[in-house]
Amino acid sequence: MLRLYFARGTCALASHIALAEAGADYTVERIDFKANQQNSADYLAVNPKGRVPALVTERGILTETPAILAFVAQSFPKAKLAPLDDAFAFAQVQAFNSYLCSTVHVAHAHRVRGSRWASEESSFADMKRKVPQTMGACFAMIEDKMLREPWVMGEQYTICDPYLYTIATWLEGDGVEIAKYPKLADHYHRMAGRAAVKKALAEQG
Amino acid sequence: MLRLYFARGTCALASHIALAEAGADYTVERIDFKANQQNSADYLAVNPKGRVPALVTERGILTETPAILAFVAQSFPKAKLAPLDDAFAFAQVQAFNSYLCSTVHVAHAHRVRGSRWASEESSFADMKRKVPQTMGACFAMIEDKMLREPWVMGEQYTICDPYLYTIATWLEGDGVEIAKYPKLADHYHRMAGRAAVKKALAEQG
Repeated sequence: MLRLYFARGTCALASHIALAEAGADYTVERIDFKANQQNSADYLAVNPKGRVPALVTERGILTETPAILAFVAQSFPKAKLAPLDDAFAFAQVQAFNSYLCSTVHVAHAHRVRGSRWASEESSFADMKRKVPQTMGACFAMIEDKMLREPWVMGEQYTICDPYLYTIATWLEGDGVEIAKYPKLADHYHRMAGRAAVKKALAEQG
Repeated sequence: MLRLYFARGTCALASHIALAEAGADYTVERIDFKANQQNSADYLAVNPKGRVPALVTERGILTETPAILAFVAQSFPKAKLAPLDDAFAFAQVQAFNSYLCSTVHVAHAHRVRGSRWASEESSFADMKRKVPQTMGACFAMIEDKMLREPWVMGEQYTICDPYLYTIATWLEGDGVEIAKYPKLADHYHRMAGRAAVKKALAEQG
């Protein structure tokens, strides 16, 4: 039995959807960010980085969304969530997810997590003002250069799709109109209709 | 024949070292960041994101360090650069590399790339001042919670090692004394002595 630690509104939703898509036997445990539970001694024993997601497996604990997503794909090969027997195609999946974690998620985080990288209120306000521009540029890059259709990698649904969907749920709060990116908007609605997405959102409450 | 686009002093060194460790047949092509060559039309045709590394393969072009590193490990299995037949151990490798790309590299980038996330000179200065603290915290986390010995994953040298070494070469410029982290300092010197590291550094000129 796998156990996923998540917080609402975070990138942990991507791993949660992937577990549901895989038909995995899992439970979820909510971490309350408003109560700063991610920095409690109990949770730091799970993930010393004080972040979600964290996935408890029988072998130990895994963190970091791209790693968990690939682990789910490899552990449940029948679900065909990644091209496991093709190193080049697998690397394309990983490159997309790596862009999401190191560039897109990071751009978003400057809206409310400025204190990770600066100390002055004026800097936080400056960072916050730039988020619609940086997130808009990231989504324009995805729309124009990366997103095949109907899924990120084309005909085959992969672990890229729940991750892109999860980050797209942040766009409205980031001041970016998804309607400006027609392929992305279609992808978002296509994802929202999937049973695994509905299941994960319902389980997050 | 693989072709790696790199710029000196960047994370592309990690992929370069991995190719050398793998015994791959490769060439390298230098992109001159001082001349803004990464944003030239020619290079944007290689990587629309205007970043390095980019790896040209017979199947197409790959970007993003964690994706390229895993691709090299999977393409040259005899080099044993990752635990390819163990999804959990492979996920641990990936989690480490994901932390480097999404947290550690990002912390470093606030020293001279502040304009990615803010617009005011005062914000850039504020971000720059915080880098010794954020990079110090990242390396304390790696020292205390992640780095086994002699290599990142323990007895087996993996694609985590060239990536960690590459980012560690930035510490002095970031105002962090590596000597404060004895395991990391040992790892750095152990890496510097490897033939593949010497080869890659020599090829970067």
